[in-house]
Amino acid sequence: MRLHGFFRSGASYRVRIALGLKGLPFEQTSYVLRRGDQRQPAYVAINPQGLVPTLELDDGTTMTQSLAILEWLEETHPEPAMLPKDPMERARVRAFALAISCDIHPVQNLGVLNAVKALGHTDAQVNDWAKRVNAEGLDACEKMLVGTRGPFCFGDKPTLADICLVPQLVNARRFGADTSGWTRLLEAEAACNALPCFADALPERQPDAE
Amino acid sequence: MRLHGFFRSGASYRVRIALGLKGLPFEQTSYVLRRGDQRQPAYVAINPQGLVPTLELDDGTTMTQSLAILEWLEETHPEPAMLPKDPMERARVRAFALAISCDIHPVQNLGVLNAVKALGHTDAQVNDWAKRVNAEGLDACEKMLVGTRGPFCFGDKPTLADICLVPQLVNARRFGADTSGWTRLLEAEAACNALPCFADALPERQPDAE
Repeated sequence: MRLHGFFRSGASYRVRIALGLKGLPFEQTSYVLRRGDQRQPAYVAINPQGLVPTLELDDGTTMTQSLAILEWLEETHPEPAMLPKDPMERARVRAFALAISCDIHPVQNLGVLNAVKALGHTDAQVNDWAKRVNAEGLDACEKMLVGTRGPFCFGDKPTLADICLVPQLVNARRFGADTSGWTRLLEAEAACNALPCFADALPERQPDAE
Repeated sequence: MRLHGFFRSGASYRVRIALGLKGLPFEQTSYVLRRGDQRQPAYVAINPQGLVPTLELDDGTTMTQSLAILEWLEETHPEPAMLPKDPMERARVRAFALAISCDIHPVQNLGVLNAVKALGHTDAQVNDWAKRVNAEGLDACEKMLVGTRGPFCFGDKPTLADICLVPQLVNARRFGADTSGWTRLLEAEAACNALPCFADALPERQPDAE
């Protein structure tokens, strides 16, 4: 398999973790987002949104959208599982993953920050936007874990929730969000990063890290 | 079941369609978003994000995030199906649904538009933001359907893709996006709205419609 992505892309990071968790080897093609590599015609032909990641299988089939890729991985390579078996527990894990993937990540990604900047705002104002989105979003995520067992978001094994959380925390820190109230989130992050599949997926360990 | 939502919320609209498709009766509690009803403590206690929708089951169990609710409905009430059986086809349907749910909807929802306005921009500039997000996002969605069979997004039955598309098209028109290039999207929309489960879920047919 080949992952078309970028070391700093949170959505690519999710797929790196999941491929590692499932024990699937993969190669990477890097797209420098600030340079606009992801908008080149050859790439847009396989990913009409012009976003990373895209997962390319050995037969050339391509898939887009990180959560769709993660669900496909779960369906085609069930062990170790990234979702619990019980439908209601699955719903809780997915809701947490979506709270990050829908309501935090896209609202602080490069495209939106560029759009804020294009409205005439300073780099500091743009950073404040991203910091606020991460802070408010992850505050809600911390509350979504009230009453759950640790050390991971939902019990003793990492799930889609952790796979979305860990990359988002990297972004939250990059934009200067205050992490001090996130007891359960940081507990889950520490448990995750003790596992090789999470550690190997860290941005700074990728071949294209700047 | 009780759907906590709002007639104009695109994410609530998705769940209304899915409940109708599965033949599940439900009652509604309305939260007027511009008035901030969704931030009242009693609601935030069941939905820490302060967003609609929340689905409440008869035993009081609650679920948040529309796509998590849709996946739960699919797992607990499999017929009629909202996802194909083949994992790769499921990945394509989910990628389309996520292209809307992650990369369009949250970037043009009330919270983000209020944040743009708070940066000192006019109502016209705020509308331009929402119009651009819908136009660019749905242009990409139209391209994601190249080579697929109609009349629905992915063949002869509605899927999660259509359930996300139809509410987004309502928003796109509301913000004045040009729909003329969206041949396949509009074909799918027409096929959907000919079905009672889609027609009954239309915003203007809800008890809280203004």
